[in-house]
Amino acid sequence: MNGGEDLEQTGNSLLRGVFAAALTPMGGDLDPDHAAFVAHCRRLLDAGCHGLGVFGTTGEANSLSVQARLSALEALVEGGVPGESLLPGTGSCVLEDAARLSRAALEVGSAGVLILPPFYYKDVSEEGVFRFFADLIEWIGDRRLRVYLYHFPQMTGVGFGLPLIGRLLETYPGVVVGMKDSAGDWERIEAVCREFPGFSVFAGTERYLLDTLRHGGAGCISATVNVTSRLARRVYDSHEAGQDDEARELQEHLTVLRTEIEAFPPIPALKRIMAHLTEADGWRNLRPPLVGLEDGQAERLLDRLPLSDLL
Amino acid sequence: MNGGEDLEQTGNSLLRGVFAAALTPMGGDLDPDHAAFVAHCRRLLDAGCHGLGVFGTTGEANSLSVQARLSALEALVEGGVPGESLLPGTGSCVLEDAARLSRAALEVGSAGVLILPPFYYKDVSEEGVFRFFADLIEWIGDRRLRVYLYHFPQMTGVGFGLPLIGRLLETYPGVVVGMKDSAGDWERIEAVCREFPGFSVFAGTERYLLDTLRHGGAGCISATVNVTSRLARRVYDSHEAGQDDEARELQEHLTVLRTEIEAFPPIPALKRIMAHLTEADGWRNLRPPLVGLEDGQAERLLDRLPLSDLL
Repeated sequence: MNGGEDLEQTGNSLLRGVFAAALTPMGGDLDPDHAAFVAHCRRLLDAGCHGLGVFGTTGEANSLSVQARLSALEALVEGGVPGESLLPGTGSCVLEDAARLSRAALEVGSAGVLILPPFYYKDVSEEGVFRFFADLIEWIGDRRLRVYLYHFPQMTGVGFGLPLIGRLLETYPGVVVGMKDSAGDWERIEAVCREFPGFSVFAGTERYLLDTLRHGGAGCISATVNVTSRLARRVYDSHEAGQDDEARELQEHLTVLRTEIEAFPPIPALKRIMAHLTEADGWRNLRPPLVGLEDGQAERLLDRLPLSDLL
Repeated sequence: MNGGEDLEQTGNSLLRGVFAAALTPMGGDLDPDHAAFVAHCRRLLDAGCHGLGVFGTTGEANSLSVQARLSALEALVEGGVPGESLLPGTGSCVLEDAARLSRAALEVGSAGVLILPPFYYKDVSEEGVFRFFADLIEWIGDRRLRVYLYHFPQMTGVGFGLPLIGRLLETYPGVVVGMKDSAGDWERIEAVCREFPGFSVFAGTERYLLDTLRHGGAGCISATVNVTSRLARRVYDSHEAGQDDEARELQEHLTVLRTEIEAFPPIPALKRIMAHLTEADGWRNLRPPLVGLEDGQAERLLDRLPLSDLL
């Protein structure tokens, strides 16, 4: 368990800002459509995203084979998406697979990896999740590794409690450096920011973007940022410039937009919006068990949104 | 969606009886120990198991890479475990991986495959789970395929409700043929037996072995059968011979044994018992997030069990 010491390094390049949890466009065969994926990621960076949380929940990564994830990552970088803008999800229930995906992320120059806890077994002990991460960090064995913990208990059934976060930080300082908190619970995000100063905390929703920044957090990594990135970036920039009133006003507008989209199943809704905005029907493809919106839902969604404000 | 018709066949070779949800012994590197696995499976068949539910929850299959699962399956058959005695778990959140694992099971002559629903996303629609199975069955595209649905909502968060079972049975008659029900709810098992006569229902615990057989079900596929197979088989045989009093008495004894083991985390407890019975320390290895029993727990467990009755 001395991996922390071996792996510790002094450089500080913690991620910060507005990140889209990028959608993965799929072809008719349900394989990732590399060209559309590259185009989408470049568009998000152009629209103001500081970085991209690719291969997360929104990216349907757990419905993709390891090989498909590796090929799509490579395609992004070959297509001109800077590796250092990527925070790839590399979690898996399988240690070897998580290690392989993480190594590939390091090879393309990613500034960090976002790792789920193993999510099949439930009611597991803190010790069990700790050992998974300890084994994983030591198997990856790369000094460049920066781990962001991916807390999403509604999906995984397995969370990162504060004692576990503390233990990982203490054992792997400079390696375990941050977290995406998708539990949707502001009080928890606040508690993590307070308890672990310097830990790079991203809210899993842009609803808490401004609050997170004000409490010393890093920003947000959010599904809906696939279509709200311009506005989310303005919130961030106003906050950084100390324009508090403007930041608050923009955040209110952003929260309304988020709320409108959240009224629908988010991944199908976001893909439906992208199909509309880009006029590319491929965006309607989803891997089961996700399914597209029904026509009536899609009409209501598109009617309610200020489409010209999006993306 | 006409895969059912294309794939339907007339032969009837439904599985029935006492199945162990076989443990997977791991080496010190956490890879499956093939020799120990072969020996364990052969021992279980010798002890009276009709078949083996390998690569299930108890087998830590979701903590193993696809390649590790394929290699271990091959090793079993090469080691003399009859392919037709195996009901391998071939589920995955990834359609391609589930298809690949299922094809491999068919190649070694398995009489069926036990398939989890995709288990990452929660709150998914019945339509989404249906489409996963529809795509999977059509991608496998093999007339020999016999699917047993693996219902374990405590782990997956995604279950097979009766309407979904009915829809799968109607669409894929002769292909979707049975279920392992690990919800631990006798009333649900009874309802499934009643609602779908001819559907091959296995209880996920030998606690309900006799009741399941009496209600027209197929038997049990259970973790604890790794160490209770001789006794479980006697329950089955007594029931088949119409010796109701004896069957009931044996079942009571079996239920007591199950209850003793269930008081501990089951997979670590079963591996600890195997380490004791075989005097092979490798049995103590578990893949994280599972961890071994603490010494005090192990002592209490071994003290309470009638070890000479086991296996």
